[in-house]
Amino acid sequence: MNTSPSFPLNAWYAAAYDVEVKHALLPRTVCNQKLVLYRQSGGEVAALEDACWHRLLPLSMGRLEGDEVVCGYHGLAYNSQGRCTFMPSQETLNPSACVRAYPVVEKHRFVWIWPGDPAKADPALVPDMHWNDDPAWAGDGKMIRVACDYRLVVDNLMDLTHEAFVHGSSIGNRAVAEAPFVATHGDRSATVTRWMENIDAPPFWAGQIRHARDYVGKVDRWQIIRFEGPCTVNIDVGVAEAGSGAVPKGQGDKGDRSRGVNGYVLNTITPETDKTCLYFWAFARNYCTGEQRLTHELREGVANIFREDEHVLEAQQRAIDERPDYAFYNLNIDAGAMWARRLIDRMVEREQPKRPTIPIQAAAPAGVGR
Amino acid sequence: MNTSPSFPLNAWYAAAYDVEVKHALLPRTVCNQKLVLYRQSGGEVAALEDACWHRLLPLSMGRLEGDEVVCGYHGLAYNSQGRCTFMPSQETLNPSACVRAYPVVEKHRFVWIWPGDPAKADPALVPDMHWNDDPAWAGDGKMIRVACDYRLVVDNLMDLTHEAFVHGSSIGNRAVAEAPFVATHGDRSATVTRWMENIDAPPFWAGQIRHARDYVGKVDRWQIIRFEGPCTVNIDVGVAEAGSGAVPKGQGDKGDRSRGVNGYVLNTITPETDKTCLYFWAFARNYCTGEQRLTHELREGVANIFREDEHVLEAQQRAIDERPDYAFYNLNIDAGAMWARRLIDRMVEREQPKRPTIPIQAAAPAGVGR
Amino acid sequence: MNTSPSFPLNAWYAAAYDVEVKHALLPRTVCNQKLVLYRQSGGEVAALEDACWHRLLPLSMGRLEGDEVVCGYHGLAYNSQGRCTFMPSQETLNPSACVRAYPVVEKHRFVWIWPGDPAKADPALVPDMHWNDDPAWAGDGKMIRVACDYRLVVDNLMDLTHEAFVHGSSIGNRAVAEAPFVATHGDRSATVTRWMENIDAPPFWAGQIRHARDYVGKVDRWQIIRFEGPCTVNIDVGVAEAGSGAVPKGQGDKGDRSRGVNGYVLNTITPETDKTCLYFWAFARNYCTGEQRLTHELREGVANIFREDEHVLEAQQRAIDERPDYAFYNLNIDAGAMWARRLIDRMVEREQPKRPTIPIQAAAPAGVGR
Repeated sequence: MNTSPSFPLNAWYAAAYDVEVKHALLPRTVCNQKLVLYRQSGGEVAALEDACWHRLLPLSMGRLEGDEVVCGYHGLAYNSQGRCTFMPSQETLNPSACVRAYPVVEKHRFVWIWPGDPAKADPALVPDMHWNDDPAWAGDGKMIRVACDYRLVVDNLMDLTHEAFVHGSSIGNRAVAEAPFVATHGDRSATVTRWMENIDAPPFWAGQIRHARDYVGKVDRWQIIRFEGPCTVNIDVGVAEAGSGAVPKGQGDKGDRSRGVNGYVLNTITPETDKTCLYFWAFARNYCTGEQRLTHELREGVANIFREDEHVLEAQQRAIDERPDYAFYNLNIDAGAMWARRLIDRMVEREQPKRPTIPIQAAAPAGVGR
Repeated sequence: MNTSPSFPLNAWYAAAYDVEVKHALLPRTVCNQKLVLYRQSGGEVAALEDACWHRLLPLSMGRLEGDEVVCGYHGLAYNSQGRCTFMPSQETLNPSACVRAYPVVEKHRFVWIWPGDPAKADPALVPDMHWNDDPAWAGDGKMIRVACDYRLVVDNLMDLTHEAFVHGSSIGNRAVAEAPFVATHGDRSATVTRWMENIDAPPFWAGQIRHARDYVGKVDRWQIIRFEGPCTVNIDVGVAEAGSGAVPKGQGDKGDRSRGVNGYVLNTITPETDKTCLYFWAFARNYCTGEQRLTHELREGVANIFREDEHVLEAQQRAIDERPDYAFYNLNIDAGAMWARRLIDRMVEREQPKRPTIPIQAAAPAGVGR
Repeated sequence: MNTSPSFPLNAWYAAAYDVEVKHALLPRTVCNQKLVLYRQSGGEVAALEDACWHRLLPLSMGRLEGDEVVCGYHGLAYNSQGRCTFMPSQETLNPSACVRAYPVVEKHRFVWIWPGDPAKADPALVPDMHWNDDPAWAGDGKMIRVACDYRLVVDNLMDLTHEAFVHGSSIGNRAVAEAPFVATHGDRSATVTRWMENIDAPPFWAGQIRHARDYVGKVDRWQIIRFEGPCTVNIDVGVAEAGSGAVPKGQGDKGDRSRGVNGYVLNTITPETDKTCLYFWAFARNYCTGEQRLTHELREGVANIFREDEHVLEAQQRAIDERPDYAFYNLNIDAGAMWARRLIDRMVEREQPKRPTIPIQAAAPAGVGR
């Protein structure tokens, strides 16, 4: 049983959708740390430790006075840097009186916080999810709380053969489970590419291409899953008329997707605790971008699909909890997930006090199992 | 505090009533082991470990394809022997890919499984509960889940003086608490016999003998409780006209019960976990066997009585959990329960790795205390 | 982290309001000990351990027969001294068969029990709460169960600056948080006295003095908080016309409160478990004592105020549980609570087996923190 932490602390984690954070106190837990978020009068978001220095009452139970948080028990006030600015019945403030303030960046419609060393909190490290606010793309998303280790969600997204068995009525069919795929990786990212040529589109995609391109018939379908450590998975998905050129002809060729429909499933899964996560997702498309009705329909449609995953993932977590020493075997389909796990493990390892390196079992070559 | 297991593994345990198991996946836990049961097209019942070899998802969340179970996550399929017959996206199946299959016997209206060593699973060891499907007897039963150690239910059944205090409005009266009893035992069974002669019948039995024999008046009442390890208790109960010859006149005499009414309370209490159990019971009678209305009425009447026990047993379990080191004292009335416990302990002991024998405190003679 | 007990055992604890205890079995937990209370035919209250000697079933699940408790499982009976007087099916009673009986005193409308050494249970040690049944005072109260260490309630009551932040709509205003106070202590009691002269009355008190004295205007307000170990806090509160002489002119002067309204907030907070408590309170006043409507209104009004505290206290307990090693800092306002804690610690210490004395950190001078 691996007892090292399940997530690195030196990383940006989505703590909220932009619209969730108003001039009001929003409690949230990220990487086992309780935070209170609020938007200041100037628009900037502040993120403080959600526990008063004095008696630990959650600050989120207090109230805002201007851009300061006032504790709901004895009235201690804190500014957005976490420094105490008022104590009842005394004029001298104890200089140690402060709560932790977290680095915050708002980008691509998410509020990101950095739970690790603030000196390393480089905004350039926020993962690219630009489709989520790029005017060439339209879409929307949600946040759901799932009672499982965030890595189970990553595993789930890195292998889409499960679509055939979990999502048979919408996006899955046997073609996904049967098509070959290619898994590659870089220093901080892993990619799984699967092309299914000249197939029947599953119900969801058949509907999209008929609606957007007025096309009915065989399609070429793609799923290009890109993981970026520790917990972001952006998936380039779509279908095009079979044989219309969407399939790349070789390295570097991007293919011609003009006779197709293209979407991005954007996912970033923030560990809330060791066994729960905040799963932020959005679905963005580059067709019919002006149709608000379609945006609404797709958001709810994807939400339904993800609820099927939620059910499976929470059952899987319970099963793992009951058998903590189970030695997992990997199939060929787990190649992408194994690379993602290996990259997460490396990020975690780099944060641990130095000790002799032990090779990580989970990182065995894909399909070999043990 | 005794920390050895509370149940033997080498035994048949009722996992379900026959009618519960259809061509569908039924999850159930027996002796801390999660199983999925299903009836195959030929009628035979299969019992598999309820966790996919690959990612542990409960197989009961999947679906049947013919007589094979398909996992609801990645589609791995297993036959009724637990061998994996399909993996997505790969042709070679890992030879280690299997889940545990349990020996199953269907007998006396129960589906019995053997959680221990399959080599020892002799169908002849299924306890005799033939009254449950003997045409000379009529009856019906239920399964209830009780949040207590199964042995507390055994204790409860082995001493029926509690009827006077727990079931005063139906089957209990002071006569039960006052009548003498005889406790005997064999290698694997223990018996408590109590005759109450020339007494007023309690409300339940007064009603039965009036209905079946049109008799009102004093009765001779019997309770012959027979425990068979580890968890089956069949109770021969009834009343007859006082003095009509039902009371045996000596060893070997079975008495003449022709002027009486006779029932069997059949109980088999399967440990689900260490602190919960699946309590299967039935009430079979040999009078008015064609009256469907009476069968229905008795089933619900007994169910109400057992609900009173359930309430007491769960409170007792909570009290024991709060005082795990309490040294229990035994009364005379506990003689039968003490024999049952001793026989269970022996079955458990036989399965433990050899170690020096220590005399078991609970096995002190009845009424002596500890 | 301090692991010594959080409460002394040699003390009187309120277990119930007088009216709660009838000729019926009332289960209650005090200092982690489960009790069953009942009023005997002569009016005296009995308090027994709530677990049958035989199989631990809570006696409170049984029934009274005269002044004896009969267990609801096998019918063992106990008298009010806890001695077993009946066992089923046997004539000789095991002499060890008894349950613990607790010393009981009924006083000032509460039923007090002594969970420690009975030899030390001196009725003279019951804390003075006579306002609760003194005909010169009128009032009423309630008991609420709060999911926190009882000492958090004591802390809460010893510092009323929290009124400004928790109870702003009723009894709190900035004056409380700003007024100076004096903290003194004796061997077993600690007192915090705060006078707020010539202030605007908060809504609650403005209403009371207008109703009782037909007065509208500035007031002198007092809060005299008196803690008596381990868990009783009586608070002398009120307002009088500003400058009418209520403020004492020096040591020994009691002031002239004739132009004011005076109440006592009576609180005794019984530890139920280490992290839950039974909070008994009453509000008694010496004005308009015949107005039943006012009694009702005040009881419900105070109940609403205490619900605000309950919310804060339970959140504080959860926060402490999550950070068991947090080193708390004290503010000036904590002086009274610190004395109360020190007195509790001394009572607990006296009951511990002797060991080398270690100075208690929490007892550092007020406002110094660490």
